[in-house]
Formats: sequence, C-alpha cells, structure tokens
Amino acid sequence: MVLTPEAVQAIKAEGPELPLMHQSVKDVIESADRALANDIVVPVPKDAGGGYTHEKHKQNNMDMYHAGIAFQITDDLRYARFVEDMLLQYADLYPTLGIHPEKGNQSAGKLFWQGLNETVWLVYTIQAYDNVRDAISRQSRARIEKEVFRRMVHFFTVENTYSFNRVHNHGTWAVAAIGMTGIVLGEHELVKQALWSTDLSGNGGFLKQLDRLFSPDGYYAEGPYYQRYALLPFVIFAQALENNYPDLKIFEYRGNLIEKMVNTALQLTDEAGYFFPYNNSIKTKNFTSKEIVFGVNIAYALSKDAGLLDVAERQGRVMISAQGLDVARDHAQGKARGFTRKSLFLRDGADGTDGGIAILRNADSAGAQTLVFKFSSQGMGHGHFDRLQYLFYEDGQEVIRDYGAARFVNVEPKFGGRYLPENTSWAKQTIAHNTVTLNATSHYEGKLAPAEAHAPSLIFYKTDAGNNQFVAAVDSNCYDNGILRRAMALVNTQQGVVVLDLFEVLAPGANVADYATYYQGQFINSTLAYAPFVNALKPLGKTNGYEHLWLTAQSDKYTGKGMEQFSFLSNNRFYTVSTLMNAAATWNFVRIGANDPDFNLRNEPGLIVSQPFVDRQVFASVVEAHGRFDPVTEMVAGASSQVKELEVVADKEGVLVFKAKIGLEEINWTISFDPDQQKTHLSIQQTE
Amino acid sequence: MVLTPEAVQAIKAEGPELPLMHQSVKDVIESADRALANDIVVPVPKDAGGGYTHEKHKQNNMDMYHAGIAFQITDDLRYARFVEDMLLQYADLYPTLGIHPEKGNQSAGKLFWQGLNETVWLVYTIQAYDNVRDAISRQSRARIEKEVFRRMVHFFTVENTYSFNRVHNHGTWAVAAIGMTGIVLGEHELVKQALWSTDLSGNGGFLKQLDRLFSPDGYYAEGPYYQRYALLPFVIFAQALENNYPDLKIFEYRGNLIEKMVNTALQLTDEAGYFFPYNNSIKTKNFTSKEIVFGVNIAYALSKDAGLLDVAERQGRVMISAQGLDVARDHAQGKARGFTRKSLFLRDGADGTDGGIAILRNADSAGAQTLVFKFSSQGMGHGHFDRLQYLFYEDGQEVIRDYGAARFVNVEPKFGGRYLPENTSWAKQTIAHNTVTLNATSHYEGKLAPAEAHAPSLIFYKTDAGNNQFVAAVDSNCYDNGILRRAMALVNTQQGVVVLDLFEVLAPGANVADYATYYQGQFINSTLAYAPFVNALKPLGKTNGYEHLWLTAQSDKYTGKGMEQFSFLSNNRFYTVSTLMNAAATWNFVRIGANDPDFNLRNEPGLIVSQPFVDRQVFASVVEAHGRFDPVTEMVAGASSQVKELEVVADKEGVLVFKAKIGLEEINWTISFDPDQQKTHLSIQQTE
Repeated sequence: MVLTPEAVQAIKAEGPELPLMHQSVKDVIESADRALANDIVVPVPKDAGGGYTHEKHKQNNMDMYHAGIAFQITDDLRYARFVEDMLLQYADLYPTLGIHPEKGNQSAGKLFWQGLNETVWLVYTIQAYDNVRDAISRQSRARIEKEVFRRMVHFFTVENTYSFNRVHNHGTWAVAAIGMTGIVLGEHELVKQALWSTDLSGNGGFLKQLDRLFSPDGYYAEGPYYQRYALLPFVIFAQALENNYPDLKIFEYRGNLIEKMVNTALQLTDEAGYFFPYNNSIKTKNFTSKEIVFGVNIAYALSKDAGLLDVAERQGRVMISAQGLDVARDHAQGKARGFTRKSLFLRDGADGTDGGIAILRNADSAGAQTLVFKFSSQGMGHGHFDRLQYLFYEDGQEVIRDYGAARFVNVEPKFGGRYLPENTSWAKQTIAHNTVTLNATSHYEGKLAPAEAHAPSLIFYKTDAGNNQFVAAVDSNCYDNGILRRAMALVNTQQGVVVLDLFEVLAPGANVADYATYYQGQFINSTLAYAPFVNALKPLGKTNGYEHLWLTAQSDKYTGKGMEQFSFLSNNRFYTVSTLMNAAATWNFVRIGANDPDFNLRNEPGLIVSQPFVDRQVFASVVEAHGRFDPVTEMVAGASSQVKELEVVADKEGVLVFKAKIGLEEINWTISFDPDQQKTHLSIQQTE
Repeated sequence: MVLTPEAVQAIKAEGPELPLMHQSVKDVIESADRALANDIVVPVPKDAGGGYTHEKHKQNNMDMYHAGIAFQITDDLRYARFVEDMLLQYADLYPTLGIHPEKGNQSAGKLFWQGLNETVWLVYTIQAYDNVRDAISRQSRARIEKEVFRRMVHFFTVENTYSFNRVHNHGTWAVAAIGMTGIVLGEHELVKQALWSTDLSGNGGFLKQLDRLFSPDGYYAEGPYYQRYALLPFVIFAQALENNYPDLKIFEYRGNLIEKMVNTALQLTDEAGYFFPYNNSIKTKNFTSKEIVFGVNIAYALSKDAGLLDVAERQGRVMISAQGLDVARDHAQGKARGFTRKSLFLRDGADGTDGGIAILRNADSAGAQTLVFKFSSQGMGHGHFDRLQYLFYEDGQEVIRDYGAARFVNVEPKFGGRYLPENTSWAKQTIAHNTVTLNATSHYEGKLAPAEAHAPSLIFYKTDAGNNQFVAAVDSNCYDNGILRRAMALVNTQQGVVVLDLFEVLAPGANVADYATYYQGQFINSTLAYAPFVNALKPLGKTNGYEHLWLTAQSDKYTGKGMEQFSFLSNNRFYTVSTLMNAAATWNFVRIGANDPDFNLRNEPGLIVSQPFVDRQVFASVVEAHGRFDPVTEMVAGASSQVKELEVVADKEGVLVFKAKIGLEEINWTISFDPDQQKTHLSIQQTE
C-alpha cells in the first residue's frame, strides 16, 4: 500500500550503498529485533496517556510496524510471525473491550483513552499487516481482519461517525486509518467513505479536510506544533492513495497542497529546527520528528527541492519507501543544498482570508534574527488568546518568548500527561503573551466560540530578507469596545538588527492597557526606578491569568514623558527593550508561578507596562541586541543600549511617524494603519 | 624568555603543517592585524572592572602580546613598531598616575582598580616587550624600561611589599610579573626577590607559594575556578625560569608540582569540561580557557601524556612556544588518546592534611554519573561555608547543584562586575548548599577566620571507578556544639547508578537540622502532602541566607516514620530523592530570590528538610535517576522511582547499616564513622 514491491526490490539492491537508507533500515531492523527478543504482551487497557497500558499499546504498534518493514526487507519469516502472533492476541482482546475506563473529554477509544490514539494505532498497524499479510495463514488473516480491523472500522465509521466526519485533525487520522484499511482489505467502499465522509456527501472526509484544514499557503490554523502532527495522516494517506488510486492525482489537489504543508511546516521552525511554540505546543519538538521525516521524503519525491535533502541529512534517516529511497539516493549523490528559511507571510484560513503569520528573517545564518508576528485565526481548541503577539529569536534562541503549552506530555504524574489546568488558566490567557491586554481581560474574554468567529486582518507587509521588513495588522473584534493595531519592523542599523514596534489601542473612555514582554534571561537593570517586593510577594491579579504572576517589583506612576529602558542578559548577549512612556504608566516586574499548587509552571520573568489612557494609546518600542559576554574569556563588550531617543513625531489621521536615534543613526518610520493606504516607509540618516 | 629563538625557527618551519599550531598562529596574527588597524588609545584610568578604561587597558595588553608573537613569527617590523608605539604612550601616561580612582577593598593598582589586574598586565606586556625589544631603538627601550617597567617594579616591590610577599594568588601574579621583568631586564636581583620575597628570606616569593598554595596533590584551596586562574602565573613563570635558570629545576620542585596542578585542574571539570562550581566561581568557565591551554601545553612537554593531546584538540589551539609546538606536532601525528576523568581523592592543604575533595565517577563516558563531595578547607576569601556538601552530575549536566558565585563578572551595570552583595548574604551561606545547616546558623557563623583555622577530616574513601565507591568525612569545628559526619556512596544497581547518603548530626540538647537539596529542573511530585503558598510568599527566614529563599510550599509536621520522596525532571531524565523522615520533620519547598532588590540572583528551586532533634540525627537518603523523556518522540519511560523502602536497620556505637530496596535488589550498606575503623561494606542481594 505504502511500501510497494518495486520499492522493496530497489531498497534491497541500492539501500546498502546509501548512507541514509542504510542507517534507516538498520534502525528499523534493530528495533524489530528488540521487539522479537521480548515476550508479546497485550495488556487490558487501563491507563491514561503516559501510563503503562497506554505506552505498551503504542510500543506494540511501533514494534509491529518495524517488524512489517523488516520482513519486507529481509524476507525473514520470524518478523511476519511476530506481527501475526501479536495481532492474534489483539484479536482475542479487542472484542472483549468496551470504552476505555480513563475516557476523558475527548472521544474515547477502546485500546486508548482517546479515539485519536486508536486511529493512530490503526494507521501504523494496517501498514504492518499489509507488509506481512502474504506470509501468514489464511485462517489467521480471517481472524485478525474480523476481530481487529473490521471491528475497528465499525467502531469508527458506525459508532463514532461524528469524529470520523468531523473536519478536524482527529478526523484526518480517522479517515486515513479507515481509508488505508479499506485499501488493504480491498474494500473500495471504505476508501470512498474516507474520501467523502460516511454518507459520501463530501461534507466530511479527506478531501473536505484538505479543503478546510489548511490555508492556501499550507498553513494549519492550530499552529506549528499541531501542523507537524496534523500533516502525518495527510502525507501518509495521500501516498497510499497515490500508489493505489493514481487517477485521483491527490498530490495535485488544491495546488499541490500536500507539498505546501510540508514546506510551510519547515518554515515554521527556528534556526535550530524547533517549531515556533505559540498556541498549545511542547517546546522540545523539532523537525527531526517522524512526521516531518515522512513529509520531507514525500515532498522531495514530488519537488526534488535540494534544500529538503539538507533537512533529511539533519534528520539522519529516511522513510523506508520509494520516496525515502529517492531522498537517500540523491543525498548520497551529493545533491543536497542548504535548506533556506525565508521571510514570508503565511495566510491563515481555508480561503486565506483569516489573517496569518508573518515571519521576518534578516538572514538564514548563524546569529540571524527572526521576528514572528501572529495575527492568525484562533486555531480551534489548541489556540491561545494572543492576537497580535510577537516572538523574537536570535541565533536560534528564544529572546522574547512564548510560554507554549502548560503540559508535561506523557508524564503520568503530571495530570496524566494531559494539558494541565494551568494551560487554560495561564498559558491560553492574553496576559501570558507579548501583546496588549485591555482592562485585564483576555481577548474574546477567553471564550473559544467568538474567538473562532473572527480573525485579525493584514494591513501591510514587506518581507524581503536582507532589507528592512515590515508587517502590520488589526484586530477589531477581540474586545467589544476596543481595536488593536500593531505595526512591527525588522530594521538593519549600524548597531545590528533592531525591532521597531508601534502598538495602537483604540477604546472609548478610560481604560488600562497592559503591554507585556516575556524575556529569556537574567534582568540586568532599568532606567526607571522601581520598588522591589523583597519581603513578601502577591499575585498581580485574581483572574484571566494575572493570578499566576507574582508581582516582584513595581515602579511609581510615571510622571515624565519619554523613553525608559530595561535590559537583560540572554544566551551571552545583552538586550534592551526601550519604550516610550506616558504619564501615569506603571511598570510591573513579574515572574510566572503564583497560584500554581502543583508547581506545574516554569518560573519565567516578564515586564508589563500598565498604561491608563483615554480613548487611544500608542506604545512605541525598540527591541535591540547589543554587546556580548564571552563565557570563556569573561570579556564583556557593549553592555549598554545604543538607543538614545525615541519619539512619535507625527500622529494624525491614522498616520504615525516613529523617530528612533540609535547609535549615530536616526531612523524615521512612517506608517499608516489605514488598510487602504498600505503605507510603510523608513529612512535612516547619519546624525554625525 | 618564554618564546625562545629556537622555538621560533621550529614554529616557522613546521607550524604550517600542524593544524593546531597553524590555527593558533593564524589567530594570533589576525588578532595582531586587528589591533594594528586601529589607532592606539591609552586612556587615563577611570573605570572599575567592566568599564571602558579597564577593558581598554586589558585589550591593549592582549594587542601588544599578540603583536609581539606576530613579530617573532613573521619578522614584520610593523608589529614591533606597534608595541613600541603603544609602550611609549604608556611611558607618557604611567608616571603621571596615582592610585586608581576606583580603588576598592583590594590592593589598588594605577592602570587598574586592582593591583592584581596590573600584575596580569605586566606578565603579558613584558613578554610582548621581550619579543620585540631587539627591533626597537635604544632610545625607546631606555624610555620604556625607565617609565613603565622600572616604575611598575618599584610600585610592586617597594610600595606594595605586602601584596608582593603575600602567599596568595595575587602574590603569585606579582612575583611572576616581577620575576619575568627581571629576566627581560637582566636584573638577577629582581628574579631572586620573586623567588624568595623582597627580603630574600624565603618567607614569601614563588617557592613559598609553590610550597603553601597547592596541596601535595596539586589542589588549590580556593577551588577549581580559582585553581584555573591561579595556575597561569605558576606555569608561565616556571617556563620562563626553566628557559633561563634551568639549574633551578623548577618543574621538578615538590614532586613535579606544576604538572600536578594542571592535571588536577582538568580532573576538576565535569564531562563537558566545565569547572565544578563550588566556592566563588562563574559557571560558564571551562577548560578551553587560556590558562588551561598554557597549562596543558607545558604539562604535555613534561609528561607526554597522550590524554592531554585530546584536551588540546578540544581547546583547538596551542601556546605559541616550544611546548605548544610539541603538542601540535604530536597531535598532528595522531598520538592523542581520550582524556580520562578519574575517580579520585584530592588532599587539600599545604601538607595534605586539610580534608579534601572526593570525586566519585562511575565512568568517563556519555551518560556517566559524578558525585563531588567537598570536605576541603575554607578556601580563603573565595570559600563558601559549605562543609560536607555534595554535587551530583549526570551526562555532564548538573543535577544536584551548587549556586556558584553571585556575580556578573565584568558586567558593569551589575555592581561594576564585582562580587555582588548577595554573594556574601546568599551564595557563601551554608543554607545555599547541599549540606546541613544547624539551628539556622551557617558553619563558623559565616566568619572567615575560624573557618580558615579548621578543616574537615577524611574518615574513609574507596574510589575504584566502575565499582561501588565510598567516601566519608567529619567536621567537628563548624559548630561550637555540633559535629557533622557524612558518608556517601555511588552504587551500581540494576536500576543504574544511585547515590546513598548517610548524614549524622551530633549536637547536645534540642536542635533543628536543615538538610538542603538544590536541584536543576522542574518539580514533578512528592509522596508527602504539602500546602503550597499560592497567593502570598514570604521568605524562609531573616538572616544567614534564609532571607533569600521564598518559601513556596510547606508540609505539615511529619507524624509517620518512614520514607518520603520528591521527584523532578531535569535534562529529560527523571530523578527522585528519597529520604527517611523522622517525626516532626517539615519539608520546605523554596525558590531563591527573596530580598534581592536588584534581581541579582537566579531563581532556582530547592527542598529543605527541617528536622527537630535531640542530641543526634541521622538523615538517610537515596538519589536516583530513572526513566527518560524523549523530546522528539515525546515518549516517556520510567517516570516512577524504583526505591521501594529505606531503613536504618542498625545504629549503635557509631556503626550504621543502611538498607535500601531498589527495584528487585536489596542493598545493605554498613559504615562506621569511627576514623580508626575506616569501615565501609556494601552488599546487594536479589529479592526475588
């Protein structure tokens, strides 16, 4: 189905000479051998994610998958027998099972607490079965197909129709699992249900999911972490369809969407290959994960983009299939070229009209800066209420950072490995992000339904890497009485690359805007005097995430009108955030971790400018890297900011001019928040 | 003097073919070229450490040093002229200077706020001058020698006799600087003063420093960070003496002490090459620092130990001298063998009788564990009050950790780059360390003089790497009415390597012992119920470092009598500390950072068991690594501790038997704290 007989012959013939394929085959056979060395154990399902039975069924799944491939490559019947024996045990177990005892809020499974895990299990197991079927007895086949596969098919297509037909990542796994099972069992009807939903209406099913779950740029609304996860059933089922239903031309569907979603996933990584961690995401995930290996191999077979060979080399392995063989062969022939991360604007929404993500990169090389500006749609249940927030990276390190998800994935003692309560009470809240919270209330009051109904809009963007780059967006719906507009620029100065930030808040009457910056590193100093709370700490607030912030210091209400700065040391670089202050502003130094009875949160620092205003407020800031601490020689250079002066020199009819003196240069940046004007202009003059 | 004419000829001839020498020469010439491209600036001294004039004079110093070497290698007179021109500017400046305006508590300099920096400057500058002297005019020579070198000699040998003759690291730099200046100026008398003190009594001077500052095992009392720093003047001056006064046989002095101090410095690093950070130390320093490059090269020329070539390879450069050439040549010939870190006991004290450091390593390979047990002398002003503390490493990562120094070295905005006030109020205090604080008072009440007068004593040790390893020591003086005795073991079990810890506190009457553990990572869970302080934090205490700990949670007073555990996740591994609890014990969860108005401290977590007792208390604990979180696949294995039961099964006449059931094994560890018995015996039985 996926691994074709022709590919098997070619891998046997050429594989040993191709480093990536040789290593990958070796790894799979070693995994299979480890599996064969142990007794088969198929436990009665009991535990939630991370628990013994959960992990054991996942492990069995991978063991069978590896053994199936090992059998194809080696023709050693022991591998086929292993899959057969294990599936016969599942055939004993599965008919006895009801719904999993740890059933949570999600659609439940039988082997697993979530139906999702069960469809993932089926995607791999049906491939294992496909790879060994010809080598096992007719009797065993009949029993396995009846008691395992057809029962699972019934469970998903009859008992859980809602999940199966739902246009959602969980549905993609379900249709991929059932569609692939249909191919293997020769049940054309199941493939049709997988493509067009159980009623064949096309209101659900794989094609509808291709239409709706990804934007025309191949962007997945839940964000990079789930884009990685979501794309696996797409690419693997697409390959199975291509091999078995070539007339569908599935890879050409919607402007080569499958290929786009892989390339977009790769672009959504930092210089070190880690996925940008906004929305629900585990920060340790990078592009060496299996889903991306499969995606890169399948995309390469389609595009022959030499940059993908570079990614494959860093992944160190390939898919054992015709596509992986393509990659390994061309890699061995030295065709790899450096994978390039670009500056780009990715549209969100099925029609590309739900805002998006702007990634401004000044280069794709060591030490490069990346600004990620988020004005995408909510991203369904995994989305955070973080309209117009940004992240800033240097040299592959987070500098201005996103918290990511509050979750210890698969760590059983931490809430069963599920999303922690603090994911909702902290990580999703607006105050947890580098944006503005109005009147201490999260965007859309933290409610999913209204947040799903609206997305921010682009005002302008220019993303030519190497040149100065700009983006601006507006969100008019996240507050009933408030509009947020933000323009950001990544600018090349003699002092290095700096970020300019103009954040306008419009809200009639008296309001307070909280402009937050969460940084990585150690606070160095600030120009504004503050009173530290040295002897007693209290939370910053009571709700909407504020209750999770310890207030560690606070400035007096500001009486001047000018620029104030705070500096920190991160990854042996100094950084300064310079912000224009208005009268009555207060700085709140915060540290995450209040109201966290189980110590679930990371205790990271942030700084929140609380600005009372009437009708309208503009925050104008510069983020600047300067100097360096050499950890070996202990030499320090450039520990002081080069930002000398900030001023908003013109501000009328929606047009702002932001002047910044940095080092010996004066920058004047003119923008308009009027989307019809699409105006951004920047000039730099020497001042001496 | 150091770089001999013969070495210059050989480096010119062979250097281009030897990768390490080629790279090192290239680096030096590039540095020299960068220096020559700029105008010479010799500013009037004004700033403290980290400030402009401080850094500029340091930079000038290195620029001259590099130019001197570049001249020798290239014969290009521009380099010699550069050194000449700069020294002539110093000849203009130096006679005009009084004591530096930022003079602190230390002996002041003229160019620098500390005399120490000035002697360091002279050590390098006199070498630069030595390398170019033959190429500059007689008139310039006379002026430079008179206005710079002889004035500095006068400043140190006449005006600052105390520092010069003091048996202390600062004195070593002074005698090296003056001795080397004496060699270059042909002033034999100065060399004699450097060797035997200004009055030639031998009560001070280089040889006395060799006698007193290092132990017979080449251990420096201030600890690894300063051992690295301290050894540079020793090795460089010794090489200068060897080249010019070979009859002194300085390298053979005191049983090849120079070589031992280098090897010991290397052994005092973790798997990643970072110096163990106890006492005052900056945690970013590793064995690629210049001092260790010089030391390794000079030691290699003496010992031809192939493991040193491995270190040199990781350093990526060599000294430009005959010794560096030896290293580069043998390295190029493939003679390097893996550098091996060993289990060892290093005696402290000039006579080797002031306790020491035990380093227990189970292997020197990826994933290996290291236990560092500290029972050395105070370590002078840079020492911390941390008798019998330990550190634990796995895979080159700190797991149970030392805070190190509270200092942002050379970062001007942070207290001028000096030791911060929190270094005294927090980092030096006993409660900041993984040991016992009695009645909330630091060892020796945090007073240097009594702490310097006494050291702990060894009770026993067995350090055969690969086997189970043991160490025990006693400190009878750190409390007026208290004795601390601790035995630790690194034991190989089927579950991996575990640490066993028996800590006995003897103190007549009613007392409270605080047993502290500072860990790296994220708290996972604990067996003991605790009340978290979710809505308000208070410091743990008011003095002795307790005022810097936020109390984040606290257990009820313990009413049972048994084992309790807490677990954390660090570097993708799970760790559990299991401790036998007595009635009335309280667990205090703490986080560093209270009473820290300038945000100078890192907010790291710890757990303190507060145990009231009468007369005697034994803490019995196991530290165990278990399981793993795979960050890419997100698979979790072994998140639960394998320690099933702990018990002190016998405890009389100073003999204890500690029983631990771990996995399917039962460990019985018998020890005696009687130093005459030197008893430690461990057995492991299968329990099933």
